[in-house]
Amino acid sequence: MSGQLIPSQILEDQPTPVPAPAEAPVFGLHRGGKMEVRATVPLRDRADLSLAYTPGVAEVCTAIAERPELAMDYTWKSNTVAVVTDGTAVLGLGAIGPLAALPVMEGKAVLFKQFGGVDAVPLCLDCTDVDELVETVVRLAPGFGGINLEDISAPRCFEVERRLQERLDIPVFHDDQHGTAIVLLAALRNAAVVVGRELADLRAVISGAGAAGVAIAKILLDAGIGDLTVVDSRGIVSADRADLADPTRHPVKTELAAITNRAGLTGGLAEAMRGADVFVGVSSGSVPEEVVATMAPNAIIAAMANPTPEIHPDVAREYAAVVATGRSDFPNQINNVLAFPGVFAGALSVRASRITEGMKLAAAEALAAVVAGELAADKVIPSPFDERVAPAVTAAVADAARRDGVARL
Amino acid sequence: MSGQLIPSQILEDQPTPVPAPAEAPVFGLHRGGKMEVRATVPLRDRADLSLAYTPGVAEVCTAIAERPELAMDYTWKSNTVAVVTDGTAVLGLGAIGPLAALPVMEGKAVLFKQFGGVDAVPLCLDCTDVDELVETVVRLAPGFGGINLEDISAPRCFEVERRLQERLDIPVFHDDQHGTAIVLLAALRNAAVVVGRELADLRAVISGAGAAGVAIAKILLDAGIGDLTVVDSRGIVSADRADLADPTRHPVKTELAAITNRAGLTGGLAEAMRGADVFVGVSSGSVPEEVVATMAPNAIIAAMANPTPEIHPDVAREYAAVVATGRSDFPNQINNVLAFPGVFAGALSVRASRITEGMKLAAAEALAAVVAGELAADKVIPSPFDERVAPAVTAAVADAARRDGVARL
Repeated sequence: MSGQLIPSQILEDQPTPVPAPAEAPVFGLHRGGKMEVRATVPLRDRADLSLAYTPGVAEVCTAIAERPELAMDYTWKSNTVAVVTDGTAVLGLGAIGPLAALPVMEGKAVLFKQFGGVDAVPLCLDCTDVDELVETVVRLAPGFGGINLEDISAPRCFEVERRLQERLDIPVFHDDQHGTAIVLLAALRNAAVVVGRELADLRAVISGAGAAGVAIAKILLDAGIGDLTVVDSRGIVSADRADLADPTRHPVKTELAAITNRAGLTGGLAEAMRGADVFVGVSSGSVPEEVVATMAPNAIIAAMANPTPEIHPDVAREYAAVVATGRSDFPNQINNVLAFPGVFAGALSVRASRITEGMKLAAAEALAAVVAGELAADKVIPSPFDERVAPAVTAAVADAARRDGVARL
Repeated sequence: MSGQLIPSQILEDQPTPVPAPAEAPVFGLHRGGKMEVRATVPLRDRADLSLAYTPGVAEVCTAIAERPELAMDYTWKSNTVAVVTDGTAVLGLGAIGPLAALPVMEGKAVLFKQFGGVDAVPLCLDCTDVDELVETVVRLAPGFGGINLEDISAPRCFEVERRLQERLDIPVFHDDQHGTAIVLLAALRNAAVVVGRELADLRAVISGAGAAGVAIAKILLDAGIGDLTVVDSRGIVSADRADLADPTRHPVKTELAAITNRAGLTGGLAEAMRGADVFVGVSSGSVPEEVVATMAPNAIIAAMANPTPEIHPDVAREYAAVVATGRSDFPNQINNVLAFPGVFAGALSVRASRITEGMKLAAAEALAAVVAGELAADKVIPSPFDERVAPAVTAAVADAARRDGVARL
């Protein structure tokens, strides 16, 4: 785990050198980590101990051995999510490995508790092979009520999620895909209201066909977007592209090609953007101003690359009626924390066996509805600190789980 | 995970039946589980969020990617232990599986925090194959500062622990082995003082050659016991036993046979007990009174089977000067909670790479010393609630780790 081991003798003979990065405030905040585990039952005396541990606990174990579903009543499983990463696509930093990913997973875990009341445990896995990831998560799943996949690179993330959900009867949710997609859809719904348009009349362009781009494409189609063109580093994703002819090579993009770009556009981002109503940026590229200028009037731009949006908001506002980014220092921040705590809180509250498309759409609708009465070009999505958000998303997701027949409570 | 899934429709149409076991107080205490995860940093506003999560956290991740040892400074790894089981030897219940083992692992986790200040996460693994267990724990290890193995059946537990310690540079400790051994040795040290004998003059009998029996045999030999005879269900473990002739079949017992029973005894428990100074029971068998009666004068009896000791304390006291059990309702309870919190707290405090034999012996000595000034036949070991225990064990283990060259701080 640690790189070089420092013999204790050296440390005893000379003062420990202070690591340079410790001087920045962010390192001060992170010292010792950001989370802890605590008992929720008393442990003051022998009587407490004999209930919480041996011999009393044996009765609870025996009951669960006989009726496994009782684990949901008598353990922390019912409210606990594993935040699982392999460290291959961490923030914009890339494949920095499981250990260096831990600060992000701890951050995610504390946000789960703060915003959704969900207990979350960071699990940073030292393997990147799809089979190994799937087997490892299946093996550690018994103690958890849900699996939040995080920062696993595309296209492996799609297969890992699909295979895990096939194997497990608890929700498996890759937040980089679906969390982002839910919040983007909520913002787009409200932005459409602001510009006086229906989703069905809009043509959208998604720049980026990674985890977020693919999930956004699917949720926008499920929500009834008019048309949708996805652009990756090789241009518009379409069936006639040579690299997508073999469906076993890029199965997810081949599938995207089949269900998007009904207009039959060819070329690159410039061709896709011409006359488009909506731009969704989930890549690290930047879009030239002259290309932005070719969008339709009253356009909607969500340029979510972090820290540098694909289109700077000052430029975007010249050509678009509504502008969103991934940054907290501009209006309309597309922030996953608006979705994942409520999505899991809702799913766990009814012991859902999975997160359906209906639950994702319901989450987006509920999130959009929170600010329906306050809509403006610079307020198409609530603030992450809007206390109405998590309860609204939680309730909507639980209802949708019941409607979709995946609830067990 | 859950056995039968109840369609939500049925639950909506009729009131949820109250499960019968919910009526016992122990089920009330366990409802919703016994632990939670909490943030240790503020998350009140955008400024907090931008330090604990994006974008600030990226700086910490980058630093760890460059210098992996910084994870010990800036994540919860340095104080966090995984409590890992496969559910194959849970309390006296046997192989009840990972899900039914969860209440025990939660209990263990809260004891870690309560008594040692160590954060612990229960991980109940759905696999029992040794290779799979080892691979799974290696893969999930990056986020943890130590691995506490729990309730894994013998003889698999020996190989799992050995192979994990070879692969990992953090402490791996099977508590059913070493926790029990440390506390037993502490009690025996003090009992020897009470009866005015030296360890080197005592001949001990261990009934049971499972996880605890094997570890107790090894630590007693390391501590310098005079002679030691191990008895399993087939009789005295000795080199001339047919089933131990092939060392690949029962490697651990073959090893035991080579290092114990210097007296060359043959036969069963009755033959071993005749004239013995010490009896250590870690089996589920019971010892007839007439066999107990053959022990040497001023004998020491530790009958640790739970809930029914191998020799009832009332009978044991007829023939022995000091009597210990595993039960809280008799004097001298051999309780692992006296060891594991301090052992891990001490090891983590100096970032030890493993738990050495020296650290275990130091833990036992420190634990014995806590009541050295109050010794009596009914007080050879402290109460689990004696607040002097954990600090004493922690300090002794940390010192021993430095002496043994496995400390990294």
